[in-house]
Amino acid sequence: MEQYHQQLDRVFQALADPTRRAVLGRLGQGPASISELAQPFDMALPSFMKHIHFLEDSGWIRTRKEGRVRTCSIEKKPFAAVEAWLSEQRALWEGRTDRLERFVAASQQQEKPE
Amino acid sequence: MEQYHQQLDRVFQALADPTRRAVLGRLGQGPASISELAQPFDMALPSFMKHIHFLEDSGWIRTRKEGRVRTCSIEKKPFAAVEAWLSEQRALWEGRTDRLERFVAASQQQEKPE
Repeated sequence: MEQYHQQLDRVFQALADPTRRAVLGRLGQGPASISELAQPFDMALPSFMKHIHFLEDSGWIRTRKEGRVRTCSIEKKPFAAVEAWLSEQRALWEGRTDRLERFVAASQQQEKPE
Repeated sequence: MEQYHQQLDRVFQALADPTRRAVLGRLGQGPASISELAQPFDMALPSFMKHIHFLEDSGWIRTRKEGRVRTCSIEKKPFAAVEAWLSEQRALWEGRTDRLERFVAASQQQEKPE
């Protein structure tokens, strides 16, 4: 459970940056090399590589080196983790709305004149 | 656009911590006072309050003080922002799958013997 939480911390942390979100957006369209990915950003390569490493360590991307080219591709697991967290929240919420509705319905039932 | 990105940074940053996610989970079930929220955590109140302030500043919760009690409630807007981001990603992905399918279908069409 502790490990699950730590993983989720890093999954969300990875999304808390516009460069990393843009990289994921690009990789959603298909694999790309580091230089292709870095091209739209006005950023020194070492800074850009920190974002790539963060995305890799947090599980969002996989990288593979062939010759001198490192290719990145996106992973689906963290998406599933974020979606699972959102559905859990939605379930809590909807459970609460259901309980409220049952309470209102029960109150109206009791108030009905015989 | 810049402001949108900064807001999204903070929305995701808020989720990158197990205490803050737990507080949101609790508030998903209905409003609660600070002391109710703090109760399950083995944490000094000032540290806990930092999490509350972070959730408030990032737009996830609203707080209201009545007399000596501060009550927190959850906001739906950041959920919508996270869901919007996820759907955007999914659309990119599915667009890519569609393009791949069309490509494969077109290739098969061309390869068909007359």
